Amino acid sequence: MDDDRGRDDPVAVVIEPIGTVVGGRNDAIDDHWGLVEATIELTGDRLDVDATAGLAGFSHLEVVYLFHLVAGKDVEWGARHPRGRTDWPAVGILAQRAKNRPNRIGVSVCRLLAVDGLQLRVQGLDAIDGTPVLDVKPYMSAFGPRGEVRQPPWVEQLMRDYW
Amino acid sequence: MDDDRGRDDPVAVVIEPIGTVVGGRNDAIDDHWGLVEATIELTGDRLDVDATAGLAGFSHLEVVYLFHLVAGKDVEWGARHPRGRTDWPAVGILAQRAKNRPNRIGVSVCRLLAVDGLQLRVQGLDAIDGTPVLDVKPYMSAFGPRGEVRQPPWVEQLMRDYW
Repeated sequence: MDDDRGRDDPVAVVIEPIGTVVGGRNDAIDDHWGLVEATIELTGDRLDVDATAGLAGFSHLEVVYLFHLVAGKDVEWGARHPRGRTDWPAVGILAQRAKNRPNRIGVSVCRLLAVDGLQLRVQGLDAIDGTPVLDVKPYMSAFGPRGEVRQPPWVEQLMRDYW
Repeated sequence: MDDDRGRDDPVAVVIEPIGTVVGGRNDAIDDHWGLVEATIELTGDRLDVDATAGLAGFSHLEVVYLFHLVAGKDVEWGARHPRGRTDWPAVGILAQRAKNRPNRIGVSVCRLLAVDGLQLRVQGLDAIDGTPVLDVKPYMSAFGPRGEVRQPPWVEQLMRDYW
């Protein structure tokens, strides 16, 4: 913690991954994640095997993970062009979902193919082999956006071939 | 770290909140979050003010936050009845979105009302006053679920009055 941190400022939090992405891609390629299959191997050292009981009743998961290969020096704290594309506007790192972000946390919805105890087979998870998993949640329809979604035009272009 | 941790096991990660939820509710009431308004006050000690440039072009945010009032002893590692409702099945903590979960991470989509530098005015964020914010992402339609969503019947009942 910084010495000049005020009384009400947030403090550091220690997070221990609950699992790892195994399989799928070895490199963080930008596009065509949709058909990639991988296994989330949850760790049994603290999780009970019934931590996934009932999970197979859901078609999709929301996975919280760490962009673990991003070095601290590469984290962006201001604005940049998404994918370095100067034909798109420079926008703040919090206005994009790039991996070079403060705390390096990724959140992604993927299809759940099978549950075998603490092994979750998934499709379309945009995280590479070896990625530390911080949380797994069931995707619930009601947790989608309420009301009409609006987003800038560059997003549609960026996402065109993502899945 | 545990001494018996294997070579390939995940290791602890230090996360530093980038902001705090200010306003809204003081208590974690289960339901009727939809009209609650609050401000995400991002910290300027490391974030540049242009970290939010372009964010106002999005209607919704995805906020990653910490359920900071959950004590370690109250974290569930196995299965339980959602909200203690024994008329609903006991399901694993990873098959529900309850706050008493490993790593205590919440992810929620809310409406973005206004951006004023590092202050984000939001509606429908289910996080109480004082909640540490770990990340803010723009909600992009393409990051919703691909394909039809399936979920167990208890979810519809639980979510009926949530927003």
